[in-house]
Amino acid sequence: MSDSPVTLTAEDRPDQPPVTPELEDLYRGFEKALLVPLWTRIGDLMPPHPRSKARPYRWEWKTLVDLAARSGDLVPVGRGGERRAIALANPSLGGRPYATPTLWAAIQYLMPGENAPEHRHTQNAFRFVVEGEGVWTVVERDPVPMRRGDFLPQAGMNWHAHHNAAGAPMAWIDGLDIPFQYDVEGQFFDFGRDELTEPEHATPDRSRAERLWGHPGLAPVSRLRPNAGSPLLRYRWEDTDAALADQLELEREGYPGTVEPGHALVRYTNPTTAQDVLPTIRAQFHRVRSGTQTAPRRETGSSVYQVFDGSGRVSVGDASWSVQRGDLFVVPSWMPLSITSEASASDSDSGGLDLFQFSDTPIFTKLGLYRSQVEETR
Amino acid sequence: MSDSPVTLTAEDRPDQPPVTPELEDLYRGFEKALLVPLWTRIGDLMPPHPRSKARPYRWEWKTLVDLAARSGDLVPVGRGGERRAIALANPSLGGRPYATPTLWAAIQYLMPGENAPEHRHTQNAFRFVVEGEGVWTVVERDPVPMRRGDFLPQAGMNWHAHHNAAGAPMAWIDGLDIPFQYDVEGQFFDFGRDELTEPEHATPDRSRAERLWGHPGLAPVSRLRPNAGSPLLRYRWEDTDAALADQLELEREGYPGTVEPGHALVRYTNPTTAQDVLPTIRAQFHRVRSGTQTAPRRETGSSVYQVFDGSGRVSVGDASWSVQRGDLFVVPSWMPLSITSEASASDSDSGGLDLFQFSDTPIFTKLGLYRSQVEETR
Amino acid sequence: MSDSPVTLTAEDRPDQPPVTPELEDLYRGFEKALLVPLWTRIGDLMPPHPRSKARPYRWEWKTLVDLAARSGDLVPVGRGGERRAIALANPSLGGRPYATPTLWAAIQYLMPGENAPEHRHTQNAFRFVVEGEGVWTVVERDPVPMRRGDFLPQAGMNWHAHHNAAGAPMAWIDGLDIPFQYDVEGQFFDFGRDELTEPEHATPDRSRAERLWGHPGLAPVSRLRPNAGSPLLRYRWEDTDAALADQLELEREGYPGTVEPGHALVRYTNPTTAQDVLPTIRAQFHRVRSGTQTAPRRETGSSVYQVFDGSGRVSVGDASWSVQRGDLFVVPSWMPLSITSEASASDSDSGGLDLFQFSDTPIFTKLGLYRSQVEETR
Amino acid sequence: MSDSPVTLTAEDRPDQPPVTPELEDLYRGFEKALLVPLWTRIGDLMPPHPRSKARPYRWEWKTLVDLAARSGDLVPVGRGGERRAIALANPSLGGRPYATPTLWAAIQYLMPGENAPEHRHTQNAFRFVVEGEGVWTVVERDPVPMRRGDFLPQAGMNWHAHHNAAGAPMAWIDGLDIPFQYDVEGQFFDFGRDELTEPEHATPDRSRAERLWGHPGLAPVSRLRPNAGSPLLRYRWEDTDAALADQLELEREGYPGTVEPGHALVRYTNPTTAQDVLPTIRAQFHRVRSGTQTAPRRETGSSVYQVFDGSGRVSVGDASWSVQRGDLFVVPSWMPLSITSEASASDSDSGGLDLFQFSDTPIFTKLGLYRSQVEETR
Repeated sequence: MSDSPVTLTAEDRPDQPPVTPELEDLYRGFEKALLVPLWTRIGDLMPPHPRSKARPYRWEWKTLVDLAARSGDLVPVGRGGERRAIALANPSLGGRPYATPTLWAAIQYLMPGENAPEHRHTQNAFRFVVEGEGVWTVVERDPVPMRRGDFLPQAGMNWHAHHNAAGAPMAWIDGLDIPFQYDVEGQFFDFGRDELTEPEHATPDRSRAERLWGHPGLAPVSRLRPNAGSPLLRYRWEDTDAALADQLELEREGYPGTVEPGHALVRYTNPTTAQDVLPTIRAQFHRVRSGTQTAPRRETGSSVYQVFDGSGRVSVGDASWSVQRGDLFVVPSWMPLSITSEASASDSDSGGLDLFQFSDTPIFTKLGLYRSQVEETR
Repeated sequence: MSDSPVTLTAEDRPDQPPVTPELEDLYRGFEKALLVPLWTRIGDLMPPHPRSKARPYRWEWKTLVDLAARSGDLVPVGRGGERRAIALANPSLGGRPYATPTLWAAIQYLMPGENAPEHRHTQNAFRFVVEGEGVWTVVERDPVPMRRGDFLPQAGMNWHAHHNAAGAPMAWIDGLDIPFQYDVEGQFFDFGRDELTEPEHATPDRSRAERLWGHPGLAPVSRLRPNAGSPLLRYRWEDTDAALADQLELEREGYPGTVEPGHALVRYTNPTTAQDVLPTIRAQFHRVRSGTQTAPRRETGSSVYQVFDGSGRVSVGDASWSVQRGDLFVVPSWMPLSITSEASASDSDSGGLDLFQFSDTPIFTKLGLYRSQVEETR
Repeated sequence: MSDSPVTLTAEDRPDQPPVTPELEDLYRGFEKALLVPLWTRIGDLMPPHPRSKARPYRWEWKTLVDLAARSGDLVPVGRGGERRAIALANPSLGGRPYATPTLWAAIQYLMPGENAPEHRHTQNAFRFVVEGEGVWTVVERDPVPMRRGDFLPQAGMNWHAHHNAAGAPMAWIDGLDIPFQYDVEGQFFDFGRDELTEPEHATPDRSRAERLWGHPGLAPVSRLRPNAGSPLLRYRWEDTDAALADQLELEREGYPGTVEPGHALVRYTNPTTAQDVLPTIRAQFHRVRSGTQTAPRRETGSSVYQVFDGSGRVSVGDASWSVQRGDLFVVPSWMPLSITSEASASDSDSGGLDLFQFSDTPIFTKLGLYRSQVEETR
Repeated sequence: MSDSPVTLTAEDRPDQPPVTPELEDLYRGFEKALLVPLWTRIGDLMPPHPRSKARPYRWEWKTLVDLAARSGDLVPVGRGGERRAIALANPSLGGRPYATPTLWAAIQYLMPGENAPEHRHTQNAFRFVVEGEGVWTVVERDPVPMRRGDFLPQAGMNWHAHHNAAGAPMAWIDGLDIPFQYDVEGQFFDFGRDELTEPEHATPDRSRAERLWGHPGLAPVSRLRPNAGSPLLRYRWEDTDAALADQLELEREGYPGTVEPGHALVRYTNPTTAQDVLPTIRAQFHRVRSGTQTAPRRETGSSVYQVFDGSGRVSVGDASWSVQRGDLFVVPSWMPLSITSEASASDSDSGGLDLFQFSDTPIFTKLGLYRSQVEETR
């Protein structure tokens, strides 16, 4: 690799110094010394507000599932490749497997009877299930069931493996902070055991984690200590669904609960800290009542959304798409997002649009960089 | 009041200065100047370890309920007296209504149709229900049902009233930090409205607080902010019972969960901070498997226990009592407590002893004064 | 001790239930069962705002020093009595050595060549020096000099001893949270070594603590960890004096700095937490420009003040005194304090009134009980 | 820009699926759908430990100053370019002005009488002065002097400008988190006033910030609130020098103080939080006694060092350089650093090597990603 990749061009522009032989000579000196002057780059590096390198984009679930199923036939799962996971590659990020500049999002696929081998890593992760069941994620030897609507956080350096105990393949999405950790360079990765033990192949209805931590407001005294990542390893759909329904019903009764009219929102939290469920990742679930349009809102940092149920229309900056069950889309930093759910014939709460969201917000809140803005009037 | 209540006696003791006319004259000088020398008091004020002014004591539930019922006939509930609450007075604390030097514990009693008027105060409070139902506590206009096994925290300065919507009287216990706040002198108290509005007389099965905050690990984004006192206003018995049963079952399966063999323990926590449910009060629930004796354990600060179910024997320091449903007892600072549940014929988890506990522990943990000690071998 | 100290009198008052034989019988039942009803005590226990058991009071320094000097002749210092310390006893607190319901304040006196033996305790403490020098406090084997204006915090469970290396006696004040810890009952006390070693008799100009922690904004990486009590063991007068002078000078230049016109105020902070210097005690230093009257201000919790320099007039609630160097006075909870410094002929900053203050404020802030109020207009 | 920049090549390698026409067809499908499979990238994205994209590198101060001086003649300072700052470009980071993947380091240069116009930005910044004086940085209208050895933190969104009040040019270094904020995309930037007011052209010896916050352990009560960025705007060389000298002297006396034999280390801290001086940047100062070699140590995250005084030899991973006053070098993530100071003839503390360091450590500690490792034996 060359020691001098710097190239500088003196340009004849109002905001730049006058191009003279002396300036060009100075710039050659900078190159040779591996230096770059601020005045040639400030507009890009220090913009008036975030201008994302990523762009808004939507992936259709059907396409993902089809390709994942074909991978199931052609690509084995095992040590080395580790996971049959296929990542969203934002079209503006140079072909890298990055949904956004900080977040990884992938569909993972496991055939009947298959095992994904044990490993651990500093990257924070989660699984979210939009359809199917039959896989258990084994976290620190605790088998955790995965069913439609379940959210499974997986904080850094927990050992984990997956096994499909069902007679059919199963797909789900993985979210991780791989791009972020790649940028800041703090990653560690260890291989675990190749085979799970017999007790780890159990298929309990509830994980031990849920039995210890899944009771609202009640902490097991023997396990009490603040954990950066949640010890509750599965947030069951039944609870999320009920929490969202309660918010909309409270709104209808005239009480506060929703974040704006027709828009219920819950955040997954770590029961040992009451903070975000993972150190670098925020996860939330939205329910937009049928026929509702949410106010355009933007925030620093990026998000990935997956439609869980219903259909509607989503606009992000200048982009806009129809979305339905399973579709994924990304919202780059500081781009306004508005969600419109399809109006249903009936006015029941079961209509509308259900959306799972994850984002890199904790990075911004913990480092003093978080901002958000809502367009109040439409 | 006299300006000089100080009286000092020069004593002829090895640890005291020799008694001379000059010393006695000096002591008169101290008295006149309102001064007291450390050397005459150090043993009492700075003991080698806590020696509580309180003593261990047990109150039988039957006695409390009988007297409360008689009060129901003789003592009206209304503005001024505010509550038909009858407090435990530790026999070593000079007749003051203090269960321990820092904690108030009382039985409260409400006749059918009665209302306890609205007020608020800096004293942190809770209700715990050992039997009955039919009363709703209205907190900040939100009616919260009270049923057997429910725990209702009531952080300082929340408006609250009670109304009995049932056809029978109902009793429950109140816990507050009245003695502590009396000592440090930070109390404020405001009277509220004399009458509740029609919607506040509703008798919903779940409070709005539960609908917002009662879903495990899920926070309503519209209401998110750290609160010193829990916004979850009712911890339902069904959840507590399930959490305790899960711990004992995990133990039987060979997994961690209990605090010691046969001893399940959950702590009520504030879902916005993951800390203690009230700023000055810790609340916990113990389940001791039938035929189990817990290791003697002591800690700084004092506790009040109420037997919720089962029967057994309790020893605190040199005291020891048989206890059964509803009985209350106090554990003064640094006195060892051991609990023995009655052995039942069957070996089912439903046997044993269920105990609700509250303590002043947060005062100690927040001020760096907490210590505990377990006798490991018996 | 009797098991039934409770005595209840049914009273014929508008706010009490009608006195009937049945009520009197009920009250006998309460007494027998060790119970006290809320309705007979609520006005005292739950007042509309703090009504302190303590009263405002002032002690003159000359009286204290004279009595301390006489004690120097009559009372030896040694193991058992531990310290030649003479405490302020608030005239409304029943003769107990309590300056306020939570705080201990005493004058300590050490003759030339004397040693106060080593011990440690959970009670948080400090020394403040209004005059003299020549004593070193040896904390965890580190000799810390004590000179006029120095503040020496002494967090709980640090070993400490004092030795007078000078040819004259020396007096200073001690502040501790003895009454608070006596109330909540979390005290531990250990005797240390009877004699200091040779190196501990050194009389360095700066303690090792100061050399590690006494540089503004600079932390020694080898010793970094949050400590509930400050590792900086001496806050030198030179620094405090300069900080106060800077505030008044900034005010004169038209910049913010003082808390109100003519009133400079600094708080001693723990460099490992940026919080109060001791877990239960706040310490501050006031400088009131000559001819200034501060706005009446009250807060929950109590304070003790010592005049360090200058003279003036102080009013606390209905009390009012002239004060001068060394005088101590107490401000009970929620009583308004106003300070008026004597007008000097010159307008220099050196005039005015310098006051050291300590209070129990951290107890209130950490437990959610802190309130303050300023009378804005005079 | 194309919507499909993804290119995937099926490779015939043991860790990859067998190359078949079906696999190649599948990979075309991935490309078309903007997807990338994990199994082709895992080795790069999830390495066993950090493998930095940056490389160790050293820049000589003389070269930097010469080029900066030539820029002083050719490049005006003013609105648009904003600053005459010339950044280090790590030779492995593609010509971008990044010293490390997260940190910006630049030499800034101001001619006599010049003003760098006011602006503010979310990027956290600081200045450090290795030589010269005469420039004042005006922060929120407070002129802060800059002299050899001074460290000036500049937390995000503080307005700031610079003006050179001296008769000679002055150079210093700037450190910022520009690359980090560029990656995560949370930047905001505002232009301020083009001209400073008369009072802002003052050249006081101490800033108002220092007068309020520069007294050890003493906080101005009127300004007390936790600030993510330090309100102390100048850490004077005199204090840093004294703190380092004290540590080495304590070591010589046999007391703890240094981080390893002969190696004194202080950390700049925020007096309102006792945490790192900036939300994303840690700043420290090392003094290595003459003739000392520090143990090789590595940590997650990257650092930039500047030699402040003395000379010696530095090794970072496989690289090694002689260094002297002003030289800068970078330590990429997880590469071991060892510093050897030149042995001097005398054994005085004034010999040795003084090094200023800044790093991105707070990003790692706040997000749970920090690790370090010391090679204990050499």
